[in-house]
Amino acid sequence: MVIVMKPGTARKDIEKIKEKMESLGCAVHEVEGESYNIIGLIGDTSNIDSDIIQADRNVEKVVNIQEPFKKAHKLFKPEDTIVNVNGKKIGGGNIAVIAGPCSVESREQIIDIAVKVKESGAAMLRGGAFKPRTSPYSFQGLREEGLELLLEAKKVTGLPIVTEIMSAHHIDIFEENVDVIQIGARNMQNFELLKAVGKTSKPILLKRGLSSSVEELIMSAEYIMAEGNNDVILCERGIRTFETYTRNTLDLSAIPVIKRLSHLPVIVDPSHATGHYWMVEALAKAAIAVGADGLIIEVHNDPENALCDGPQSLKPEKFKHLMDSVRQIASIENKNITI
Amino acid sequence: MVIVMKPGTARKDIEKIKEKMESLGCAVHEVEGESYNIIGLIGDTSNIDSDIIQADRNVEKVVNIQEPFKKAHKLFKPEDTIVNVNGKKIGGGNIAVIAGPCSVESREQIIDIAVKVKESGAAMLRGGAFKPRTSPYSFQGLREEGLELLLEAKKVTGLPIVTEIMSAHHIDIFEENVDVIQIGARNMQNFELLKAVGKTSKPILLKRGLSSSVEELIMSAEYIMAEGNNDVILCERGIRTFETYTRNTLDLSAIPVIKRLSHLPVIVDPSHATGHYWMVEALAKAAIAVGADGLIIEVHNDPENALCDGPQSLKPEKFKHLMDSVRQIASIENKNITI
Amino acid sequence: MVIVMKPGTARKDIEKIKEKMESLGCAVHEVEGESYNIIGLIGDTSNIDSDIIQADRNVEKVVNIQEPFKKAHKLFKPEDTIVNVNGKKIGGGNIAVIAGPCSVESREQIIDIAVKVKESGAAMLRGGAFKPRTSPYSFQGLREEGLELLLEAKKVTGLPIVTEIMSAHHIDIFEENVDVIQIGARNMQNFELLKAVGKTSKPILLKRGLSSSVEELIMSAEYIMAEGNNDVILCERGIRTFETYTRNTLDLSAIPVIKRLSHLPVIVDPSHATGHYWMVEALAKAAIAVGADGLIIEVHNDPENALCDGPQSLKPEKFKHLMDSVRQIASIENKNITI
Amino acid sequence: MVIVMKPGTARKDIEKIKEKMESLGCAVHEVEGESYNIIGLIGDTSNIDSDIIQADRNVEKVVNIQEPFKKAHKLFKPEDTIVNVNGKKIGGGNIAVIAGPCSVESREQIIDIAVKVKESGAAMLRGGAFKPRTSPYSFQGLREEGLELLLEAKKVTGLPIVTEIMSAHHIDIFEENVDVIQIGARNMQNFELLKAVGKTSKPILLKRGLSSSVEELIMSAEYIMAEGNNDVILCERGIRTFETYTRNTLDLSAIPVIKRLSHLPVIVDPSHATGHYWMVEALAKAAIAVGADGLIIEVHNDPENALCDGPQSLKPEKFKHLMDSVRQIASIENKNITI
Repeated sequence: MVIVMKPGTARKDIEKIKEKMESLGCAVHEVEGESYNIIGLIGDTSNIDSDIIQADRNVEKVVNIQEPFKKAHKLFKPEDTIVNVNGKKIGGGNIAVIAGPCSVESREQIIDIAVKVKESGAAMLRGGAFKPRTSPYSFQGLREEGLELLLEAKKVTGLPIVTEIMSAHHIDIFEENVDVIQIGARNMQNFELLKAVGKTSKPILLKRGLSSSVEELIMSAEYIMAEGNNDVILCERGIRTFETYTRNTLDLSAIPVIKRLSHLPVIVDPSHATGHYWMVEALAKAAIAVGADGLIIEVHNDPENALCDGPQSLKPEKFKHLMDSVRQIASIENKNITI
Repeated sequence: MVIVMKPGTARKDIEKIKEKMESLGCAVHEVEGESYNIIGLIGDTSNIDSDIIQADRNVEKVVNIQEPFKKAHKLFKPEDTIVNVNGKKIGGGNIAVIAGPCSVESREQIIDIAVKVKESGAAMLRGGAFKPRTSPYSFQGLREEGLELLLEAKKVTGLPIVTEIMSAHHIDIFEENVDVIQIGARNMQNFELLKAVGKTSKPILLKRGLSSSVEELIMSAEYIMAEGNNDVILCERGIRTFETYTRNTLDLSAIPVIKRLSHLPVIVDPSHATGHYWMVEALAKAAIAVGADGLIIEVHNDPENALCDGPQSLKPEKFKHLMDSVRQIASIENKNITI
Repeated sequence: MVIVMKPGTARKDIEKIKEKMESLGCAVHEVEGESYNIIGLIGDTSNIDSDIIQADRNVEKVVNIQEPFKKAHKLFKPEDTIVNVNGKKIGGGNIAVIAGPCSVESREQIIDIAVKVKESGAAMLRGGAFKPRTSPYSFQGLREEGLELLLEAKKVTGLPIVTEIMSAHHIDIFEENVDVIQIGARNMQNFELLKAVGKTSKPILLKRGLSSSVEELIMSAEYIMAEGNNDVILCERGIRTFETYTRNTLDLSAIPVIKRLSHLPVIVDPSHATGHYWMVEALAKAAIAVGADGLIIEVHNDPENALCDGPQSLKPEKFKHLMDSVRQIASIENKNITI
Repeated sequence: MVIVMKPGTARKDIEKIKEKMESLGCAVHEVEGESYNIIGLIGDTSNIDSDIIQADRNVEKVVNIQEPFKKAHKLFKPEDTIVNVNGKKIGGGNIAVIAGPCSVESREQIIDIAVKVKESGAAMLRGGAFKPRTSPYSFQGLREEGLELLLEAKKVTGLPIVTEIMSAHHIDIFEENVDVIQIGARNMQNFELLKAVGKTSKPILLKRGLSSSVEELIMSAEYIMAEGNNDVILCERGIRTFETYTRNTLDLSAIPVIKRLSHLPVIVDPSHATGHYWMVEALAKAAIAVGADGLIIEVHNDPENALCDGPQSLKPEKFKHLMDSVRQIASIENKNITI
């Protein structure tokens, strides 16, 4: 951490800051510049809140040198984390594809889709039971009944199930029934929920918020890990920008950045990012080419009558084509496709 | 709602869409263009999910003509909503200023600040008990104890208290003790929490998400109102953009836009938007000049030792100066300052 | 400037960097941290291109402490610059309002509008002769003829004229005829054009680019000043964000930021920022309340038949109302309205 | 084009608009809704400026159904455009890689790099002679001398040269010496320059502006094509977002969008988008996987001493590795690599 003092700060005020920093356990090193004096802090500064220093009226700015996360940081655990979901691996050279409908609509629908995505090579089944919808008048999901139908689909296919939790009230039912608990983009900084899932024993799929930086995404993973749960799978799903042709802007650069900063696996959701089914395969291929550890893809057996996200859902035969393409890219990358 | 069909769509496919729309209760009107056929829907379309139409592979795009909210829409309630908090009015020509520290730190701190902001003309006291922090290693608030200290400050000053709820688990304790329940920017689309506060009898202060459009902000108010609670105060607090000099970019244009679309009162938070204490007064004046119904301002008696948000907190004497400036602008605008 | 070395960089590589920096004329100060070594540079670093340092593969990152501009910096010239346009002052407590149509359309139109905005208190007349349009099929301006009509309007009213230059080819004709040469948002980083206007003797109105930071705006002013022309008026006109209700997002926080960093005057263009005539007055008042040195407002005598920007143009009577409101705010701010 | 009238607009005002539209050559079709009346326009509306309609105070909004470009539109020319640069093809299944330094620095430098990138399989040589730099104090390029050195490198290697034009003043010298004229991101809406290059006989490489939508990028191509030059190569090079880890956010979704809307070839510049050499290969592979027709890559023989963009420049051996990877992806995609 580097503290830049305002031009003309009195010697005693500089000394006051230096003492404060030393009292927080840092060694302090001052560099006297022409306009600005600079104070470098040496030691572990990840517990120091830079706001507290910035609040000093003599401080011009505070520059963080070290990222503010620890458990999620590659510096402290260089080898890749491999998350194991009922024997299915993701990370460390293993690519897992999660597929299924936006929301569970009926027994027939979810089982039909589950069987088909399994045939094409999906490793896990996704499907929304509790649905975050922009409008209170839109379909809100089958809720508890949706979870039960997912379990039936799991029984038929053996696919582990991935579904979104929207409230800490549902922690018990999720921990009991679900294989991967998903935190949606809109809840990425719902810190009470992060703490709650951090106390479970289930892997967590953590989606990047629409306006969250990569660093903030990893900080939210740190929240979960700080509670003792290290099985976090990150997910890039598009950020909000001025471009309106696509629903969001898929930030594939985030993949190499995350790989550099963290040991956690990261997957890509091209369905939500683009909002258009006809773009999904091209971006799925790009995601694997850029180094992602997996994909999460919306697949529906009747998109035109889907209760949500029909425009971005693939029909099962298009998903099969996508899997074939992804396998080719994965083979170039010397990655294993988890089935 | 206007549906644009893809060039070359077969007659039978156009008819299929028209029948589907009629089955949803809309009258349908077709316009045959040169490249595109257009279908106009007549009637209340606010319950129709445009995604369901967009999912039809023959549909080029769907254009919403009417905003998707109803209870919050000015069209359906043209007169301004005035929210009454223990006799203090906000909206409809009444400006209320909410002031206080980022977080409650101690009895002395919160009472001292409460007394001072009341003297300067604040109508309500803010103070965080449950704190959403980016890092799990930062101060997380005094939680239940913080609520108790706020009540003591209320007893001393008579100021109603405004504080943020972070989980539906705390609904009962908030409904019992708090005068205005705040939904923070990061929870603006935490729909389970919106539904929960919609069932309480307390006014809700709803902050705009960092990457939420004005329309989405009003849709989140609609969630609360759909549960029966009409006392929603909106709050502009900055959106995330590429500009990094300020913490966020305060979008003052949102105020006239909200005034045009909705009857709900809207206030401005220049402290969180800018992140710098020295900009707060200038933007507070601008907020009143542009038509806001109030302000929420961070004030701390010792910002340099504040446990959070010190850099953007005003000292009580600077807050007094701000209130004097705000009164001058309010007087030009013929608005009443609620005290 | 602070250089952060990668963890584990060899001593000889650190020394190599230090020598390179010393050879560029800086004193060098090293701080040895636990994970990272930090090198502080002392002396004038504004001529050092941080990219050149960043290119060293052992460098983790480079942090600029000092803003990269000099002539435009308040640190090197603390008193406000007052630009004098034919005796009309802008900056240093003097507010000037520039008004007129998006484009010059005819003699009658420009003279009629000029007379009316002068009556209401405008200090200068704007009007586009050369028009940057998104579509090659839109009206491109009357070009040279437009300049002549502006001169006629000047003769009738005495108002100095402000108009946009789009190519360095037109420098001579602009220098001869125009009172303030405008650089549009899309040309803010057209560096060849900046150099060209920097060689003229006329004041330059420099508009902020749609995706330019405040620092980049001031750097573009520095380009002009580096050629010898110090009469630069900055203009905030909205930045591009995800919000689509308004044409752009007016960033009023930029005004106090610019006032802190630079001595140059800064005005606000609420017409282009919002794109809607009914929002212009509210944001004009806010701009003056936040500390702007002036406004540029689109006024048209027949907006519904204007050849461009009709939706955001005020009719002359609405502009008169705006001027009355602006005067009230300016009087609170103890500013003088230049007429 | 669809016009939505404000609720409560009088019949005569609706008729007035309809007559105005008919006078512009459109057939008009009215749909009477409950709150809003809608007017659909039939016929070619690409020459109608929607602003002119929007300016009518009774108009709520105007919705464009058809994209505003024609010559660049796939609807009017469904087959892919293949641009031929001295016999080297780009587009229509042909992938061309352009490589070279940010700026030409010396004869030895440019020839050495040209020889090496040719050996690895680059189809063309890039190199800046006239350089757009944020700071007036940074290296501005060797200008005319740089063009001469590029010609020498061309003579040695046979590689066509691609270099950026910054001012219409240089049109003649560029047309005479350069094989592909590049328009940089900052000049994407420098309309005078677009018109000037549209009159040349050379292929134009048009880079997307930092805050330009895909539609605006294609509109700028339309400017060039409207002057008679149909050889336009589009280039995605990152857009500006809130994420600061990368220099810009590479928008790979733009590739399938452009392929759907236009017949023009499109390439990707991962060097400028990311700003970090260690990310370039991963994103280059993703670009080819997503369907790009080529790449433009910064390569320098001594990045640590490069006069600009060193941090993002690859050394020749890393570029060789990139080419090998790209070839593998191209082979899966059944594309030909132009050499």
